[in-house]
Formats: sequence, C-alpha cells, structure tokens
Amino acid sequence: MRLRLTVAYVGTHYCGWQIQEGKKNLPTVQAALEAAFARVLCAPVRVHGAGRTDAGVHADAQVAHVDIPENRAHLDWRAICNKSLPSDICLTDVRPVPSDFHARFDARGKIYTYHFWQEAAFMPPRIAPFAWNCGFYLDWDAIARALPCFCGRHDFASLQNRGTDIQSTERVVRRVEIRPDLALLPHRASAAIQVEGEGFLKQMVRNMAGILFAVGRGRISADDIPALLELRDRSRLASCVTAPACGLTLTRVLYEEDLQNIENS
Amino acid sequence: MRLRLTVAYVGTHYCGWQIQEGKKNLPTVQAALEAAFARVLCAPVRVHGAGRTDAGVHADAQVAHVDIPENRAHLDWRAICNKSLPSDICLTDVRPVPSDFHARFDARGKIYTYHFWQEAAFMPPRIAPFAWNCGFYLDWDAIARALPCFCGRHDFASLQNRGTDIQSTERVVRRVEIRPDLALLPHRASAAIQVEGEGFLKQMVRNMAGILFAVGRGRISADDIPALLELRDRSRLASCVTAPACGLTLTRVLYEEDLQNIENS
Repeated sequence: MRLRLTVAYVGTHYCGWQIQEGKKNLPTVQAALEAAFARVLCAPVRVHGAGRTDAGVHADAQVAHVDIPENRAHLDWRAICNKSLPSDICLTDVRPVPSDFHARFDARGKIYTYHFWQEAAFMPPRIAPFAWNCGFYLDWDAIARALPCFCGRHDFASLQNRGTDIQSTERVVRRVEIRPDLALLPHRASAAIQVEGEGFLKQMVRNMAGILFAVGRGRISADDIPALLELRDRSRLASCVTAPACGLTLTRVLYEEDLQNIENS
Repeated sequence: MRLRLTVAYVGTHYCGWQIQEGKKNLPTVQAALEAAFARVLCAPVRVHGAGRTDAGVHADAQVAHVDIPENRAHLDWRAICNKSLPSDICLTDVRPVPSDFHARFDARGKIYTYHFWQEAAFMPPRIAPFAWNCGFYLDWDAIARALPCFCGRHDFASLQNRGTDIQSTERVVRRVEIRPDLALLPHRASAAIQVEGEGFLKQMVRNMAGILFAVGRGRISADDIPALLELRDRSRLASCVTAPACGLTLTRVLYEEDLQNIENS
C-alpha cells in the first residue's frame, strides 16, 4: 500500500532532504525517514520526496510517498514513526493514496517562504534558525516594484547555482509577494516573502531573495532585473548573493486538487 | 557605569540561568554573558540576573545588570556582545541605569508564559523546543474555572519543589489567564497560559501548569485546588506532575515604572 506523507522539519542539522550517493553517513531527512520506517518493517524502504531541499532549508509540509506491505497497512504509521524520529523531523500527516500517486511527478507546484531579519545589532534566538540576518533595513517599496519581474514564464538560468544537469532552465513563477502576515515576530525587523511556482531550479528562491536584497539595499533597481535574467548566467551576477539556506522554508507542495481549490477560492 | 541588560535565550542547551557553585563547567546563560563581557574588558565581571530560570527554561526578556568601567561606557555593548554570544542567547536591549539599580532587588514582578501542545501523534519541530507535548486535548473550560484559585496572596508551599531554603512561601499572583493569542501555532493543539506575580517559588509555575493539566484531564477539579494549596507540601500532590521546563518562558520582568504603566493602561 502506498502512503502519502506530509513532513515538517527544521533543516538546521541536516545536509538537505536527499540521501547523497557515496556520502550515506551524512544526516539527511530522507535517511531519517527511511530509518524510521525500516525500523518497523525490518527491511530497507525507499521514501520518495516531492523535492530536494538544500542543506539547512526547512519544511513545514514537504510531501513524500512510501510503499508499505498490505499486512502492515493497519498500523498508525504517523504515531509510530514520530516516536522514533528525532524531534526536528515530524510526520504531520500520513494517508493512503492510490498506488500510482507519485510525490514528485504528480506535484504541480511548490510554495516557498523566505524570512529576513533586518536588524544587525541583535537577532532573537527563537527565530535565528529560521531567518537570514541580512543586517540592514531594506526598502520594501523598491522590492515590491521588483517582484513582478519574476512572475510568469522565464528562463531562470541566472538564478541557478552550479551542480545540476537539468535540460531546461525555463520555469513558471505564479506569484511572488511580500507577506507581513508571515513575519516570524511582530517586530519591524522581521519580514517575509512568499513565492509560488510550478517548479524551481537549484537555489532559485535563495538567488531570488539575494537579488531582492540587492534591490532593497538600492544597489540595483527593478528596471535592472530583466537584464539580469537575460544574462542566463548566475556567475555574472556578482552583485547578488545567494541568500542563506536558514531563511528558506518549503511551505507547501501543490497537487492537482490543490490547484483546483486555489482557483475556486 | 551600570548597564541594564534585556536578554532573550532559548534555554534548551543550558543548565539554567545561574552559574552553579562547584559546577562551573556546566553551561549557563549567566556564564555565557559574563564571558562575553569579560572578553572585551579582559577582566572577570559579574552579571546579576533578575531571577534564576531552571535548566531548559526560555526567556524572551530576562533582565540583568552589569558594571562597566567608565572608560568603556561609549562602546556599543549590545552589538559587541551579540557578536560573540552563541545564537541561542541575545542581548535585545542594553541601556545605562543609575548605579543603584538592581535587576533582582528592584524587580516588582514577573510574567511567565507556559505553552502546551495537546496532540500526542505529532509535534511540529518548530515548536517542539518551546512547548510541553502533554499528549491530550485538555478541558479548557475546566481549567478556566480553576485559574482564580491561584490568584491573590497564598502560601504556595504546595507548588514549591525541593532544593530551596526560602523563609516565606507566601507569594502574590496577580493574574493567571488562558491566552489563545499567545499560542505558538494557529493549530487547535497549541495553547498557552500566562501568569503574572510579584515573585515565584522554585518551579512554582511549572507545578501550577501540572495542576492545570490534571484539571484539564478531569483528574481533579477547581474545587480541589484550595485543599491542595492548604496541604503546603508538594510531596503530597502525587496526582500532579511538575510540567517540563521546555514549555516555560520568562516573558517579562516588571519594575516600578512598568507597574505604573500597567495601572494607567
């Protein structure tokens, strides 16, 4: 029987979602989940995630699937696995799905949230693991003017870091928004942007956050962004950092039924 | 020159606020702060806290004071110390105060917040360090009926754990409230109570939370609480646990001017 898993994790202490071939001793979220299931099944098992998150990136609702023998279908897998999982990884939901459901291939989109902290002198310890202390108060009006540049279908090669061998670098971004309601603390230094897209290149959201930081500092303006995207080469964006992983959270993975719900709402 | 420090910390990895005589190698928040100041002053320094928090207890705004040589008064102590402090301790405010200010002796009250998580099957990793997974949905109407029993001046010996040699066990609790607005997550399993008092005995708030848990589970009722307090002996409250430290946060320390502001608001 196939189970669909919703997984929340604090990525701080993990080398990302995915087990790295040849480096199986590195802690990954996937390995921790597979170990939790294998402990009960007394057999190795593969957990397939909807998307890889980088080292240090968090998730509120990563989605994955796993196949379980029919004779173990009755178990309360959420409760059992959560008992053995470390406290920074948690199955928030487990439900049976048709055997052709695939967490990755069926995904129709993802929502990421990026958190900024803008006060250099201090950073509240509660939020330190979840936000980028970018050290400056940013010009959010300027950032707001830049956001539409990323929306729609673009070749996002300029926002892709090395280490991938993907065919196409075209992606569709559905929306990019400043979301004061998602700030981690009710403090003017706490800010958040949210990005929804059909799919993302490696470190694309973090590079987008780095460009928006440069905009918010006044180093570049919204008018410069189309040309940056035209470069189609990340190595030429010297003025824009890749925003650190700690600020990024995979907020949601979207499937066909989610898109219909969003359209109807 | 005397500085008043406001300190936020995640207590998870500390053996409480206070340096323990004879066990100076144990990590404490006080020791970390003293080390941060000593690093700049090249001399040992004492940091006096408003109150000791137990091992594992958090603080959003602990208050402390420290004396600095006049010739170092011009330094930006907040920024300097935060650079060398670990990310789970942070000075959120540093300001000069009259030399007779004393963080502990001048304190007129404290506000503590206790966080519950009521869902046994899972606990979101973001909040796991900050809430007690008490494993059951509690009867908050019953708890609400019990809260007034704690308000006012009482002998709280029943709520004091061993390990203290305090003269009087009488304390004044000004208010105890259920605070849905302080829940860590917008989820029905997330709940919070807040307690304000002139002073607290060792583990008094955690024992109060343990009694409220017993009330919320239906093991005892509001009517039983006056008799529990009358026992004046914690060891006879076998049915009530001491709620774990992770759920407790020192939210605020109140001084004379804070009380006036509260009265005027």
